[in-house]
Amino acid sequence: MSEHGCELRFRALFYGLLRIRRKGRKTMARVLIIGCGGVATVGIVKCTQHPEVFEEICIASRTLSKCDALKERLQPTTKTKITTCKIDAGNLEEVVALMKSYKPDMLIHMGMPYHNLVLMEACLRCKVHYLDTAAYEPEDVNEPEFRKYYDNRCKEKGFYAYFDYPFQWAYRKKFEEAGIVGVLGCGFDPGVTQAYVAYAKKHEFDTIDTLDILDCNGGDHGYKFATNFNPEINLREVSSPGAYWEDHKWHRVEPMSIHRTYDFDGVGVKDMYLLHHEEIESLGLNYPEIKRIRFFMTFGQSYLDHMRCLEDVGMLSPKAINYNGVEIVPIQFLKALLPDPATLGPRTHGRTNIGCIFTGKKDGKEKKYYIYNVSDHQEAYKETGAQAISYTTGVPAMCGAMMVLTGKWNTPGVHNVEEFNPDPFIDALNKYGLPTRESYDPVLVD
Amino acid sequence: MSEHGCELRFRALFYGLLRIRRKGRKTMARVLIIGCGGVATVGIVKCTQHPEVFEEICIASRTLSKCDALKERLQPTTKTKITTCKIDAGNLEEVVALMKSYKPDMLIHMGMPYHNLVLMEACLRCKVHYLDTAAYEPEDVNEPEFRKYYDNRCKEKGFYAYFDYPFQWAYRKKFEEAGIVGVLGCGFDPGVTQAYVAYAKKHEFDTIDTLDILDCNGGDHGYKFATNFNPEINLREVSSPGAYWEDHKWHRVEPMSIHRTYDFDGVGVKDMYLLHHEEIESLGLNYPEIKRIRFFMTFGQSYLDHMRCLEDVGMLSPKAINYNGVEIVPIQFLKALLPDPATLGPRTHGRTNIGCIFTGKKDGKEKKYYIYNVSDHQEAYKETGAQAISYTTGVPAMCGAMMVLTGKWNTPGVHNVEEFNPDPFIDALNKYGLPTRESYDPVLVD
Repeated sequence: MSEHGCELRFRALFYGLLRIRRKGRKTMARVLIIGCGGVATVGIVKCTQHPEVFEEICIASRTLSKCDALKERLQPTTKTKITTCKIDAGNLEEVVALMKSYKPDMLIHMGMPYHNLVLMEACLRCKVHYLDTAAYEPEDVNEPEFRKYYDNRCKEKGFYAYFDYPFQWAYRKKFEEAGIVGVLGCGFDPGVTQAYVAYAKKHEFDTIDTLDILDCNGGDHGYKFATNFNPEINLREVSSPGAYWEDHKWHRVEPMSIHRTYDFDGVGVKDMYLLHHEEIESLGLNYPEIKRIRFFMTFGQSYLDHMRCLEDVGMLSPKAINYNGVEIVPIQFLKALLPDPATLGPRTHGRTNIGCIFTGKKDGKEKKYYIYNVSDHQEAYKETGAQAISYTTGVPAMCGAMMVLTGKWNTPGVHNVEEFNPDPFIDALNKYGLPTRESYDPVLVD
Repeated sequence: MSEHGCELRFRALFYGLLRIRRKGRKTMARVLIIGCGGVATVGIVKCTQHPEVFEEICIASRTLSKCDALKERLQPTTKTKITTCKIDAGNLEEVVALMKSYKPDMLIHMGMPYHNLVLMEACLRCKVHYLDTAAYEPEDVNEPEFRKYYDNRCKEKGFYAYFDYPFQWAYRKKFEEAGIVGVLGCGFDPGVTQAYVAYAKKHEFDTIDTLDILDCNGGDHGYKFATNFNPEINLREVSSPGAYWEDHKWHRVEPMSIHRTYDFDGVGVKDMYLLHHEEIESLGLNYPEIKRIRFFMTFGQSYLDHMRCLEDVGMLSPKAINYNGVEIVPIQFLKALLPDPATLGPRTHGRTNIGCIFTGKKDGKEKKYYIYNVSDHQEAYKETGAQAISYTTGVPAMCGAMMVLTGKWNTPGVHNVEEFNPDPFIDALNKYGLPTRESYDPVLVD
């Protein structure tokens, strides 16, 4: 951040004065956005479509040139005042310094989840609202202290993801006392899926008995094999044990051992597999009436075959080998061979379909209900320059921030999305790119 | 070869004298063996089991230490006098110098087929019998002059392998005039399979109508993926167009597009695929009566899946990419990750089954006939230190050399195996490790 030291000190004065001018207005806000990848790009594009709320945004990421390029592209299209800043989001002092100078009303974190805790701490110190899109996990999952915690948690709770919520829930009381709102996991899943549960409970059911969350990506990028993001994260997904919630406890299953097919509206028939997913953790606590919560994600057979074959020959290994005197990490070398995920956007066709299928009771009668969204990769790309996987995460982040900034979600503390009023959020989603579809007679998953 | 210069000159004198002493004997011979890999190891072990024919052998390869280690292991077990020599088999002058000093009666070439032409030329100059186990192909198949020849031959003849016989057949008249015997392709396939054809024609049929050559490797090395030899050669096999011979011409088929299953004696049911194979070229010429000749090789679905997935991501590419400033060839890096083929021997279990299925007529009646061998990987390994894939190639090479050295195959010129009397050869195979099995009611391949 050294090249921005002077600029920051100047900004501190400038924005301090500006802030005095803005105090009287209610819904116009200054927002610090962390990240400039696919999801952040969508979130930022969407913010700039609503300058009546997002009056000023600062795009801050490790790579200033990406922030500047996005600013250059968007500034001519919007009244939102865009600034940029280089930041190491893992460096607390650096983030606090930026926040003290920029004085945002809210921080939207659309970077890596490794930085959630640093950014929450910075928000607490500066009394700034906070929103992220994925649960905290450490950058180094082999760090001994984390490992000890992790092994213990796996044993005690029975699920095997590296992410979980207690690290962030630990900030509940502090945020409450500071009078700031922290929104956890406000992408699509986690995020919209939890709003769907709150919505279903509020409008459709007296009691919910079962919930299946279905995440389908029916996109085709035309490559025989490519990954939408870091292949290391992809590998974790398919090689970690799955888990579901039933009778108030976790049930562990072997990786990819529960397979179903489902005919998705707008996509067609796809293979899907039971995975652990983070929103089950909070939904299980917030809705103890739900007897069973499962999460399914689609994976094509070809994708799985490639992952398995690459793993078999050691190409997914994160451990360096000595090759002709050079240390080479196989999975890093593989990344260099694969198409850059950033280039998939323009060539990805097809749709995503993500939603929740419920069974339960209303007025004493058994009832089924399915609420979901269908998004088109090419439409998302044309609008934002990123395909639907980023789109379905970035739009809810903007809508969630809008809820906080307009006072619709204003309970101080740290909350998962299902704890807020779902109605204005789903209204916003309907209006701003992720319209809701419903079915009262869905095919249930076995 | 510099370190052997002096020794060679001394040898020239020594063996010259010895040769005079040996002139009166008929079947005791001195043999120069090129190669010291798996196949050569088997061939050499087998030669040393017959010191009554192989009185002296010189093991010559690029890596002298391998030759010396084999000599050290075998010398205490045999009366055959073993010497060793470092040689570049692609260097004509070097080979001629060695032959002039060692004065072999025969050269057995069990090294790379790139060197066939150099070694035949050396044999011609020194009037030494010649035998190899695979048809010539150039080391650099992209060399422009070869490429021109190759493209033209593909078009004219209709098969797409890099190997073919005309380069070696060009020596026919020269070998004949020199009074030496050249035996081409005397492994199992090519080699024994052609002897099976000659045998079937001699003893079982008046006319042969169809021939299917079936090559089954039912071995399991316990790895999820490993290759028995260079993965680049494996790749060529599965990615080259196939071809079969019917009505006196080649019929090209897409790679791996003709798939059958067959229940192999001693192995079980296996998937097999139609490939081009070199013995079809000579059999088609030598047996114009045969209406259709096909070759099938077994490949497990898992093996094919791995090859395909690795190809899809670019891991089989022979072209270097720049990775963090270092030039890395993906297929070479893959080789470094995979188990060393040399380590597969002790852990490979199961059997091979290779043979020929005929239909035709005898005494005016329709007839079927199947002649084949079943070899066990572990038995081969225990006897020779190499598994059955090497064993089934090395044993026929020894038996073929024995035929030449004992005068049973003595027609001067360059010949494929089917041109010789099959009876003593098959007798030798039966006695020395590759016993023949027969069936008069085989299941035919569609």
